[in-house]
Amino acid sequence: MPGRHIAIDAMGGEFGVRVTVPASLKALELQRDLYISLVGDESAIGPLINSRSRKVHGSRLEVLHTPYQIGDADKPTAAIRTRDRSSMFLAVELVQTARADACVSSGNTGALLLTGRHLLKTIPGIDRPAIVATIPGSSRATYLLDVGANVDCAAEQLFQFAVMGSVLAESLAQGQPARVGLLNIGVEDFKGNEQVRRAAVLLENCSAINYIGYVEGNALFEGAAEVVVCDGFVGNVTIKSSAGVVNVINSIMRQRMSSSLLSRMVYLTALPLFRQLQTRIDPAKFNGASLLGLQGSIIKSHGNASAEGFLHAIQRAVGEVENRVPSMIAEKVATIMSTQGPAGNFARGA
Amino acid sequence: MPGRHIAIDAMGGEFGVRVTVPASLKALELQRDLYISLVGDESAIGPLINSRSRKVHGSRLEVLHTPYQIGDADKPTAAIRTRDRSSMFLAVELVQTARADACVSSGNTGALLLTGRHLLKTIPGIDRPAIVATIPGSSRATYLLDVGANVDCAAEQLFQFAVMGSVLAESLAQGQPARVGLLNIGVEDFKGNEQVRRAAVLLENCSAINYIGYVEGNALFEGAAEVVVCDGFVGNVTIKSSAGVVNVINSIMRQRMSSSLLSRMVYLTALPLFRQLQTRIDPAKFNGASLLGLQGSIIKSHGNASAEGFLHAIQRAVGEVENRVPSMIAEKVATIMSTQGPAGNFARGA
Repeated sequence: MPGRHIAIDAMGGEFGVRVTVPASLKALELQRDLYISLVGDESAIGPLINSRSRKVHGSRLEVLHTPYQIGDADKPTAAIRTRDRSSMFLAVELVQTARADACVSSGNTGALLLTGRHLLKTIPGIDRPAIVATIPGSSRATYLLDVGANVDCAAEQLFQFAVMGSVLAESLAQGQPARVGLLNIGVEDFKGNEQVRRAAVLLENCSAINYIGYVEGNALFEGAAEVVVCDGFVGNVTIKSSAGVVNVINSIMRQRMSSSLLSRMVYLTALPLFRQLQTRIDPAKFNGASLLGLQGSIIKSHGNASAEGFLHAIQRAVGEVENRVPSMIAEKVATIMSTQGPAGNFARGA
Repeated sequence: MPGRHIAIDAMGGEFGVRVTVPASLKALELQRDLYISLVGDESAIGPLINSRSRKVHGSRLEVLHTPYQIGDADKPTAAIRTRDRSSMFLAVELVQTARADACVSSGNTGALLLTGRHLLKTIPGIDRPAIVATIPGSSRATYLLDVGANVDCAAEQLFQFAVMGSVLAESLAQGQPARVGLLNIGVEDFKGNEQVRRAAVLLENCSAINYIGYVEGNALFEGAAEVVVCDGFVGNVTIKSSAGVVNVINSIMRQRMSSSLLSRMVYLTALPLFRQLQTRIDPAKFNGASLLGLQGSIIKSHGNASAEGFLHAIQRAVGEVENRVPSMIAEKVATIMSTQGPAGNFARGA
């Protein structure tokens, strides 16, 4: 099938079809060479597609029925153990069988990771996939990885994240070089744990990566680097605590709104300013986290994303397809492996 | 000497005596039973104390001269190796010899930790001291530890942090019980790394701690617990990235101020609101990080704190002295050790 074909797990997330279906229709409306397969319960999806949409989008929209879905509370292993194939499983399978170019799901992250590894396999040389969060910046975005797929990471894995992150950042910025930093508790050589210090040595010795050194937490939001690498525990807590600060702002705003007429007026006057602030600092607004390192594109949407947020995740998937991100990563890994000889920084025979 | 006696490393931090001396004079003015020893270069300190201050504060203020100081770029070990005793070393020594009740420094954190361990020793049962950051809350503060003293922590250390944090939180809140959480990437049992999951088991089995389970990054700023425990790598990155979000807000504000008259008017109208926001979300405003776990109180001030910030650190030191925080920790550790038998969660013979 020509064009870009995205498989959507229609059942995932807090709002399920009420978000995934309208977002998909909007994506089809905005991009004329886009194809979408909605995977899930046809009796829930069907009523949300009106006859006008069916007529306008025609063969660019298909619904693949399955009554099964993975819940947020299910153990990740349930996703691949079950014989009743879920909407998530089938959506990823469409990428595996090359019927789709990428998949978007807002379901159970652990299940999505495991399904991705099971069906698509990791890129040769990459140990495990990583989840990438996008931090908005005043000029360019910063990609932070890993934000939750791997709680413990050896130096070699951090090195692999740096390779993957730089390919992603450069691909999505039309080839502009990306600076890569390692997240650490200080900028001096002796700072940090063993894994981070060893990863720094690996990166310093790799000419294919534009490594700029250690980056501290505060520099993350100041555009110090386009790619910042850390283990999944640190990345997850960092991205969530930053979002927590934004939530505090929101709640103070709401309190103010209800406190007095004067406060309310001040709030209303300042509203556009706050909107701008939130666009800059709320990572949730930049919805769509790539699962990098697989032989295919999977985008994880926030579980509580709105239709607008889910649309953003679909567009991120299209961006990865257009820029051939998985192939580009595979090529870069192969190049580094071949120039560095028997490269212990990459997984062997993966 | 009666009252509260605080030793001040007058030379530490970005602004040295220009911050430490005015803050000390202000502290003496505000609290009539306070005694302060300013340690550092007398020729720099002297001119900043006018004759009126000398007369008013009299014997409550003394200056102890040393020409030596530890620089921020110095290796921590330099602090205890040198025979030329620095202002930081002498200030901590005043606590060791019981001439002062607590010490405040805004110098090199690594050097301060090492000097503290060298001179004051850790409390029996505690492996290593931890640095505690205070996160402002709408009703009660949240104490996050460790934020940088220990990059790798075994489950037993995390358990010790929980004990120390809960004593601090309860002491500074007139005995109100403190909820203790473990920072993690999710709230489900299976989430996190080995150390955190093992620490959870230790805490669940300790009736002396009000353990409430896992806490995610976003909940840190929502007052989910009064004490949140993590290793020093995670804590450091978390606290700095949250401050980074606040810095972004500041810079957007400044841009707005200079962009147009209308923007400027909106900004000025909204200014009180922003001030309130910053007080709520900027951890730097709550200056004064305790080094918990030593047989004496040491407070680390931010290196770039203002005189107002340094004053806050002095007052924090006074609070720890008044509440006998180190003794209270020692008592709690001893109680838990005696009720739990040969408790492997605490260091033996430390």
